[in-house]
Amino acid sequence: MDIADWRKKIDDLDRKLVQLMNERARCAHEIGKLKRNSAMPIYEPDRERIIFENIARENSGPLSEKQLRQVYERLVDIMRQIQRDEMLPEVASEGEATEFEPND
Amino acid sequence: MDIADWRKKIDDLDRKLVQLMNERARCAHEIGKLKRNSAMPIYEPDRERIIFENIARENSGPLSEKQLRQVYERLVDIMRQIQRDEMLPEVASEGEATEFEPND
Repeated sequence: MDIADWRKKIDDLDRKLVQLMNERARCAHEIGKLKRNSAMPIYEPDRERIIFENIARENSGPLSEKQLRQVYERLVDIMRQIQRDEMLPEVASEGEATEFEPND
Repeated sequence: MDIADWRKKIDDLDRKLVQLMNERARCAHEIGKLKRNSAMPIYEPDRERIIFENIARENSGPLSEKQLRQVYERLVDIMRQIQRDEMLPEVASEGEATEFEPND
């Protein structure tokens, strides 16, 4: 395979990754709605710890645990933004939702 | 569905995401090898622009283009680290590969 072939494979993977990340965001939205109705906190350190444990266990490389964690920290930050927007829709619609500071 | 059900769905998605990210990393490794043999640069702004265009076109939400881009910037940075390690294996084996500064 030459570089063009590998890049085609990467583009195919990116299509799937974008779909899965959006599915994950839809789940975060739904959890945000449930949290809003039950007054649960957005930031739950125990749940985030479980997510990082799960991905480390699933990781068979070549990404190192640290590299995978770096991507997931960004992804989890954004999922937290989504839940924040779900719980504070008035604030989110006024400002730039992605400018919120994460609360940890 | 309650919160536990949504979290189970997220855990399933995370398993797939970890696999796909690792497949993507394997492709970056292979491209790194080909680049090493042909003295091509690690950082290719045109290729990175195409990646960001592709993911924006594929994005049907609920992630905003900006949110998706934030995750992908991290992912692309790590892929660049992988290619750097492939091209400079002596340096990478001496130090901490993930501490390299991105070159853009």
